[in-house]
Amino acid sequence: MAEGGLLLLGLDPGLQATGWGVIEAQGTRLRHVSDGTIRSKRGKDISARLLEISGALREILERLRPNEIAMESSFFHLDANAALKLGKVCGVCLLTAGEAGVPVREYAPNLVKSSVVGYGHADKQQVRHMVARLLAGVAGDSEHASDALAVAICHAQHRPLERAKKAARAAMSTVAR
Amino acid sequence: MAEGGLLLLGLDPGLQATGWGVIEAQGTRLRHVSDGTIRSKRGKDISARLLEISGALREILERLRPNEIAMESSFFHLDANAALKLGKVCGVCLLTAGEAGVPVREYAPNLVKSSVVGYGHADKQQVRHMVARLLAGVAGDSEHASDALAVAICHAQHRPLERAKKAARAAMSTVAR
Repeated sequence: MAEGGLLLLGLDPGLQATGWGVIEAQGTRLRHVSDGTIRSKRGKDISARLLEISGALREILERLRPNEIAMESSFFHLDANAALKLGKVCGVCLLTAGEAGVPVREYAPNLVKSSVVGYGHADKQQVRHMVARLLAGVAGDSEHASDALAVAICHAQHRPLERAKKAARAAMSTVAR
Repeated sequence: MAEGGLLLLGLDPGLQATGWGVIEAQGTRLRHVSDGTIRSKRGKDISARLLEISGALREILERLRPNEIAMESSFFHLDANAALKLGKVCGVCLLTAGEAGVPVREYAPNLVKSSVVGYGHADKQQVRHMVARLLAGVAGDSEHASDALAVAICHAQHRPLERAKKAARAAMSTVAR
């Protein structure tokens, strides 16, 4: 980690392709660090595919040592079967992060889009365009990596507010006692 | 493992309570080995809860060394949000099984019920009753454990057929060459 900066890993989970992207946030300044796409082969059984995803994520966590993770967690527009399938990958990411001791915050896709583009129903191209504008021209190696960078950016914007809320709740509970 | 017998672990995954049950199958003879319920506390964050579930399952796999796992995988009657949540637990079970090298087969709840009770819409009490009849009076330490034993029984009934199908497919592909 660069001095004073926080490394934030964004994840866009999916069984075929899980996008990931790391940015460094220093106050309101954002910098692209790295991104990529974890792909798992169809045809293999689901346990083997989840093992691949978990192994690749573990390698990223060890190599880049992010301080926090932000994961896109979507259930809108999904049928229950698709949600169950996506949930398996999300569960594996949460477990792998937990094993590495890195905290994860989940974000709904609409919040990610409105944070990055200013519009909750923005399309993939608009997200990609804004990610590139915010990260000095880097948009990610795939649509999935681009989405992952967008989640990391969303987290960079929301985490100061989350911390303030947590502090306020802690102060309230002290008063209540 | 007893001589010649196969140890089958059934799982009924859930974030609050994951039922598990091990039976020994020798031909058509079934014997209860052990069962229980993994509970994870509300209030903790999701990563911590998935870590608890994975750790408990790993301990069961190491202690009882099942040959195969059967997991209830349900998406009927679930909204997408509930399916995403259940999927996280299923994903963690699949990954933990994969790490231990134990194959997992997923079964829909209706197939489990019709295998055990003879009726796909059987209620929890009917399942519990039939599990106890098939396992010399043992129905499991909770409803979840009972469901897990039912999945293991369902797998014991289906696995010979699955093996025959696999062999038939292999023979077909040899002929096709």
